[in-house]
Amino acid sequence: MGEFELIARHCTRAPRRAALGVGDDCALLDIAPGQQLAVSSDMLVEGRHFLPTVPPERLGHKALAVNLSDLAACGAEPLACTLAWSLPRADEDLVAGVMRGFWALADAYGVDLIGGDTTAGPLNLCITVLGQVPRGQALLRSGARPEDELWVSGTLGAARLALEAFRGTVQLTGEAFEQARRAMELPAPRVALGMALRGVASSAIDLSDGLAGDLRHVLAASGVGAEINVGRLPHSPLLAGQPETLRQSCVLAGGDDYELLFTAPPSRRAQVLAAAARSATPVTCCGRIVPGRDLVVLDDAGQQLEAPRGFDHFA
Amino acid sequence: MGEFELIARHCTRAPRRAALGVGDDCALLDIAPGQQLAVSSDMLVEGRHFLPTVPPERLGHKALAVNLSDLAACGAEPLACTLAWSLPRADEDLVAGVMRGFWALADAYGVDLIGGDTTAGPLNLCITVLGQVPRGQALLRSGARPEDELWVSGTLGAARLALEAFRGTVQLTGEAFEQARRAMELPAPRVALGMALRGVASSAIDLSDGLAGDLRHVLAASGVGAEINVGRLPHSPLLAGQPETLRQSCVLAGGDDYELLFTAPPSRRAQVLAAAARSATPVTCCGRIVPGRDLVVLDDAGQQLEAPRGFDHFA
Repeated sequence: MGEFELIARHCTRAPRRAALGVGDDCALLDIAPGQQLAVSSDMLVEGRHFLPTVPPERLGHKALAVNLSDLAACGAEPLACTLAWSLPRADEDLVAGVMRGFWALADAYGVDLIGGDTTAGPLNLCITVLGQVPRGQALLRSGARPEDELWVSGTLGAARLALEAFRGTVQLTGEAFEQARRAMELPAPRVALGMALRGVASSAIDLSDGLAGDLRHVLAASGVGAEINVGRLPHSPLLAGQPETLRQSCVLAGGDDYELLFTAPPSRRAQVLAAAARSATPVTCCGRIVPGRDLVVLDDAGQQLEAPRGFDHFA
Repeated sequence: MGEFELIARHCTRAPRRAALGVGDDCALLDIAPGQQLAVSSDMLVEGRHFLPTVPPERLGHKALAVNLSDLAACGAEPLACTLAWSLPRADEDLVAGVMRGFWALADAYGVDLIGGDTTAGPLNLCITVLGQVPRGQALLRSGARPEDELWVSGTLGAARLALEAFRGTVQLTGEAFEQARRAMELPAPRVALGMALRGVASSAIDLSDGLAGDLRHVLAASGVGAEINVGRLPHSPLLAGQPETLRQSCVLAGGDDYELLFTAPPSRRAQVLAAAARSATPVTCCGRIVPGRDLVVLDDAGQQLEAPRGFDHFA
């Protein structure tokens, strides 16, 4: 089966939101009056962002999920995406599996696949996602102010625990391993929470490279510092029986969490909790924004811990 | 130098058209009232779309040029793009070179780089380009009608000639080789022509996989057939001294031409020529659309030639 048949069979559906989908030189999309287009691209490389053992359905889910997570962090509503990928060969089982996982998530969020590219090469998936957000209401990294409270959605650390189990540095029971692996391979983008936080959160970012590193991006963009208490960070129940140092490094520097980290003035605490309830997403207050530029991480005894750096693909 | 420093140094400039550029989870872009967003993604893989010998500047140029060519084929005005790429290592010479070529072309067309991704992996560049076109005026593949004339911009075949010279199947003098190589590595997207053809052309496509294969996409989308005369196809002057079979295969199935192939009713011939003059782009009438579904290729003696298939990455 050739390139065009693979695309026709697995990647082409009539768009519901776009004016023109797959099949021409460009796709066409209308952006509603008063809305801004929000755009983000993420590239996933085999051996770097996913293991060769990942089931294709989960790979398709994750490739879209990490992009939707970027829209969530801006409070944008997903509209459509393009998928460009290189494959070592025209493996229909791989393509069909990836697209099953992709479509399940795309359908859940009403996202049209409107274009892309399919080529031969080492396995690599690049998705560009398009969303819309009312003009001036996007959540940015630059809006955090001293006194703001620091919030995080869901729980942290399970994806990193799975990675350590795959690496053999941690032993997990079969059930715990499956749960951790699901966290790593099937992250749930916090789209509903992001949209509910418009006009409530003062800043937001999604957690992809580890909380400490991602928080530093917010601090740098906002020109502020932060104090977080490691004991207040919502760790995955799977971490409960693990040594404290592993628990701390998984929640502070785990990566692949795809939760939202956001700030809001204390006066908006009730609005934050209402947004969380409306989007059925648990949120936890885990620290506060302070003057200065430093990130201070405290343990339960009030002792300062060394804050880990974020992930760098070339460090 | 790490990922974030590389991005900060070479990939970050203040946007001129976008509301928010590189540095947040999403970029933000306003689409003018009455305009539709046009979107296209292309992925370039080393050894497949470019040779390891390509100078980095030319690689950066080509990665953007092939995407702008898709906007040109729709008659869209370029606005912005994202660049996601994987690199074997943090090679600043490579990054700086690619970005020099990229920025030179981006500046020439007023294109903002508004986001993307930089990761480790086999060399792969994926650009998603965003443009705008007045609602309902995009040039589509589906608009060709019987009696329409078939037009092509520029000249064809030089990029394929360069590829054959690299492969050693053709010998070229030093000067001819350099010219052919420029055609392959520094294609000029026909953006001005595409915009000038709004309301004039009935259909359009850009030539990336070879004229015969790309024309078949137009015929399939429009439900029509075509007759082309090989002798009327504008071949590159570099092909003048080559054997007829090589000339024919380079112009019919060469690939990497990035010229526009378009149709227009004979009554609009003067408007086609005016659009070509306004955009300073040579155009040549090379055939016509006919009823049916077949592509008929005739030589100068009126004999029918076998029409080559287009390029398929997995065939």
